[in-house]
Amino acid sequence: MIYLDTSASYPVLPEVREALIAASDLCYANSAASHLLADRVSQNIESVRSVLADMIGSYSSEVVFTSGATESNNIAFKSLLLADGFPPDKNHIVTTSIEHKCVLSICGYLQRRGFSVTYLKPDSNGIISVEKVEAALQTSTAMVSVMHVNNELGTINPIAEIGELCSRRGVLFHSDAAQSFGKIPVDVDDCNCDLLSISAHKIGGPKGVGAIYIRDLRKLELEPVIHGAGQEEGLRGGTVASPLVVGFGEAAKYFPMHYHEFERTRAKDYLLGQLAEVGIAYRVNGGGDSLPNCVSLTLGETDVGSLLRDNESQICLAQGSACSSREIEASHVLTALGLSRDLAGKTLRISFPLNITLTQLDQLIEAIKKASVSNLDRRYL
Amino acid sequence: MIYLDTSASYPVLPEVREALIAASDLCYANSAASHLLADRVSQNIESVRSVLADMIGSYSSEVVFTSGATESNNIAFKSLLLADGFPPDKNHIVTTSIEHKCVLSICGYLQRRGFSVTYLKPDSNGIISVEKVEAALQTSTAMVSVMHVNNELGTINPIAEIGELCSRRGVLFHSDAAQSFGKIPVDVDDCNCDLLSISAHKIGGPKGVGAIYIRDLRKLELEPVIHGAGQEEGLRGGTVASPLVVGFGEAAKYFPMHYHEFERTRAKDYLLGQLAEVGIAYRVNGGGDSLPNCVSLTLGETDVGSLLRDNESQICLAQGSACSSREIEASHVLTALGLSRDLAGKTLRISFPLNITLTQLDQLIEAIKKASVSNLDRRYL
Repeated sequence: MIYLDTSASYPVLPEVREALIAASDLCYANSAASHLLADRVSQNIESVRSVLADMIGSYSSEVVFTSGATESNNIAFKSLLLADGFPPDKNHIVTTSIEHKCVLSICGYLQRRGFSVTYLKPDSNGIISVEKVEAALQTSTAMVSVMHVNNELGTINPIAEIGELCSRRGVLFHSDAAQSFGKIPVDVDDCNCDLLSISAHKIGGPKGVGAIYIRDLRKLELEPVIHGAGQEEGLRGGTVASPLVVGFGEAAKYFPMHYHEFERTRAKDYLLGQLAEVGIAYRVNGGGDSLPNCVSLTLGETDVGSLLRDNESQICLAQGSACSSREIEASHVLTALGLSRDLAGKTLRISFPLNITLTQLDQLIEAIKKASVSNLDRRYL
Repeated sequence: MIYLDTSASYPVLPEVREALIAASDLCYANSAASHLLADRVSQNIESVRSVLADMIGSYSSEVVFTSGATESNNIAFKSLLLADGFPPDKNHIVTTSIEHKCVLSICGYLQRRGFSVTYLKPDSNGIISVEKVEAALQTSTAMVSVMHVNNELGTINPIAEIGELCSRRGVLFHSDAAQSFGKIPVDVDDCNCDLLSISAHKIGGPKGVGAIYIRDLRKLELEPVIHGAGQEEGLRGGTVASPLVVGFGEAAKYFPMHYHEFERTRAKDYLLGQLAEVGIAYRVNGGGDSLPNCVSLTLGETDVGSLLRDNESQICLAQGSACSSREIEASHVLTALGLSRDLAGKTLRISFPLNITLTQLDQLIEAIKKASVSNLDRRYL
């Protein structure tokens, strides 16, 4: 089995696996209680909070644990904009048409609640420029939200420039950093981020845990998304899932090292080079600055359907965005780049596991060749 | 170390531990994708959904996975009552003053959003009677929410009768069954529940996963609490935390058996009998039908503070409700029963691990004796 869908979810790192096992035996108490075991759990949680805060250049008190980046994104928008004291004349949001689907879903909800939303289209490279953001700002703009790295294309948006603009114009800036955290530096001060979403299972941590950074959290009036018993500065109800938090901490510590080793394999370059060499027609979606762990590949002359259904090769591939791949719609990211529904259907989102081998890449290339040849064959029958 | 705070969180069962390890190796794909590995993950999730549905007598399609009972409770109230199409004249809620703190927090939020809420007080046994619920119903009542088993007292509310009343009067009925599921039968049809919240870590499953049952889910207009990419019938955004779901399934399968074995130890009866025998003054809070896994004990002549701080005995005990024990307020449940702040401070919430031994119970009794004797000593100095 070759798993090429790591942008959706990385397998758990070996170090995380060990920590998860140990933590599920040791961290079963509720950290909010006040006995010996609860204190130990609480210390573990706070230690991970510090690790994450150090990585993003924030204070620990500004990091809140959530169930994942989707919940973090929900908090980023709703906890501030829907809080009782939020100025009613600040009712405009600037975001992009290539955000993760959950952001589009949250913005749709806020539109039904009276907000207006500008969805910026990317340039032909799939990048959102600071100029586009600036042109969209209004006096009523409350928040700008631009993802750091796009989950389908791997493209990197200039969030430092966008954050600087927002800071200058007095507009809140949120970035969904689920795909960048642990891979490239993300510093909330360098990027002037007021809000930043991160996730554990995008960096080899467990599913079911993420975090949201909120600048000056304790000074703000915030409405929880999940109301609870006062946990996480009162912002996020529910017993903190301490074993998952411990796993998140280990992932944050070890993923960057493994990722840098992966980068040295130059898997993406090898794949593209070989496809060109064997004469497969392809187009890479998105350009400019991008991460080497994934590539969006439109294979115009390949029977992508048969490649995806090719159980024999045991290759796990994603078509469009994994979160919604059971939907029959074309990926909204590819649509934003101008791809037709037909071409979007011929597009693979390939994202490599950290330990990908040349043999596995060659198997992928063989499978693509097979699906392309048979397609050509059928055309000439 | 004797852990007597299982009402807050049970240690993970051995069977769950094994399943969690296996699942974190096998279930790393995103179940929403459409490749071999995602299909396998998806099958695992659906199989657990069936197990849970069978246990509560519902259809699988009516069970939605969440991050825990707190989130489930949030969905129960907000997804229905705050949905666009919900009748605006149905703006009254009946709940109780002894619900889990998160329910009180959710209701406070709904009050700020225009709802009126009646908080029923329990009788002297800590029970909410169907007559009290009936007397509180108004033509504007949208929902009644009464917990099945109270988390501090272990008392069992007559939810079948309350559900029957609600059904007869056309009012939605929600029950927080986090403390009863897996311990006593919970059947959504027998109890006429429209909404039911359950949690994994209250039955030896992993932290970070729970579920909400919603009758006729697919026919309702619901507003998600966490907006996402269409997961879980569009009601709950975010990648489903499949390893946790698998762990939840194992806990649901194995916990009842372990719990029935625990019941045979009669730990609560032994503890109370021995305390009486050695002459410790105590009062059990709550009465009538109650679970044997926990007991709320007011020790009027014991220095409970020193008992809690007694690190030597290595006993983990909760004072008041664990979720908020770092707060200095008296437990809201004990206050509702009429206990003074002073007596609430002298109250322990003891909840037994499944494998509690007589030796451990004797150690607890010794520790209570020690804290009582020294208190008496001080008084007579």
